[in-house]
Amino acid sequence: MIKGVIFDLDDTLYNSSEFVNIARREAIKSMIDAGLDVDFNTAWEILNKIIKDKGSNYGKHFDDLVKAILGYYNPMIITTGIITYHNVKVALLRPYPDVIKTLIELKKMDLKLAVLTDGLTIKQWEKLIRLGIHLFFDEVVTSEEFGLGKPHIEFFKYGLKKLNLKPKEVIYVGDRVDRDIKPAKALGMITVRILKGKYKDMEDNISDYKIENIKELLPIIKNLVESK
Amino acid sequence: MIKGVIFDLDDTLYNSSEFVNIARREAIKSMIDAGLDVDFNTAWEILNKIIKDKGSNYGKHFDDLVKAILGYYNPMIITTGIITYHNVKVALLRPYPDVIKTLIELKKMDLKLAVLTDGLTIKQWEKLIRLGIHLFFDEVVTSEEFGLGKPHIEFFKYGLKKLNLKPKEVIYVGDRVDRDIKPAKALGMITVRILKGKYKDMEDNISDYKIENIKELLPIIKNLVESK
Repeated sequence: MIKGVIFDLDDTLYNSSEFVNIARREAIKSMIDAGLDVDFNTAWEILNKIIKDKGSNYGKHFDDLVKAILGYYNPMIITTGIITYHNVKVALLRPYPDVIKTLIELKKMDLKLAVLTDGLTIKQWEKLIRLGIHLFFDEVVTSEEFGLGKPHIEFFKYGLKKLNLKPKEVIYVGDRVDRDIKPAKALGMITVRILKGKYKDMEDNISDYKIENIKELLPIIKNLVESK
Repeated sequence: MIKGVIFDLDDTLYNSSEFVNIARREAIKSMIDAGLDVDFNTAWEILNKIIKDKGSNYGKHFDDLVKAILGYYNPMIITTGIITYHNVKVALLRPYPDVIKTLIELKKMDLKLAVLTDGLTIKQWEKLIRLGIHLFFDEVVTSEEFGLGKPHIEFFKYGLKKLNLKPKEVIYVGDRVDRDIKPAKALGMITVRILKGKYKDMEDNISDYKIENIKELLPIIKNLVESK
């Protein structure tokens, strides 16, 4: 019997890849306008190397970028980048089409809902609240809170424990084969891969279902409920 | 000969007391709406005690508030408060009347301008940039950057050094007798106290000039220039 759904957040419930891409590009452009003496493509390459080296949750990407280009700390340029990034975030964060409709239907089916996401707790909550969907979820679990992230199976077990459900009672929905689907399936959850974001074309022989829009979850769950 | 003007930021160039007051009150209201089970006045008292104990630049006022009331960490409620605080900041930050006009006139008089402010570098720059006035200043000096804040005289000396000016060549404009006017005057700067913010009624027998609107600076400076 299906009793709950656990969702990944970034690129599963909203277009994280696109939003981050636009926010970082606009931030660089605004820093160049503010006096960062570099062409866009060079700055873009340096920033991406910093993000790759330090991880996406490192708090000082723009500090390092400005230091790498100018050779010194320039708070005006760094702050300009931060403000632009934040303004783009506020302007662009919205759920994928049909996310809210689908969450309403899932609540009407009396399912428990959770988000299981890698990232800093306050930042992931900020996204959920700004997306306007946080109240749908009975549990929100972050890698920062648990201390270990995806694809560690312990993290997924922790999510199940918070919902007080067994793996077979849960559908897991995520966009990544390696970090979402593999560990969820290894635990025995029913896996649904959503073909969104920058990993949508990745090879996938293991997901139980693949969908392009979150509303396709509804007939899948109805069938599973009726077949039991 | 007057060659430069150094300004305090908070409550001198914009209404910091009012903005912070509204932002914190709205943040508390939004946290109560989000499930923080407390009456407004109790939360307000606890928050002010936390701010007094930990200082205004402590980054976790709302974390401590929620923990003090609920007894545990609740990231949804904390993040709701942070988002509301930030939204109010973006909505309400604007310079006092006549600030931009006056800064334009001061630049036309070929004066060097600086801001000397207590606070975290990125946060103070964020205010200047969101106020739309950062490009007027030749130097922005923060206590975080220097390592010591007001009323330490070394901090004021550092500001003068950055402008490459002597005390007698500089007019200092601030709202506080104890932290702005006293040390600036002790160094030999000409002091102008702006009667704004929560300290506007404080006793003051030492300021060279007292003004209610920043535009009153212009005749003061013109007189000083002509009398030399």
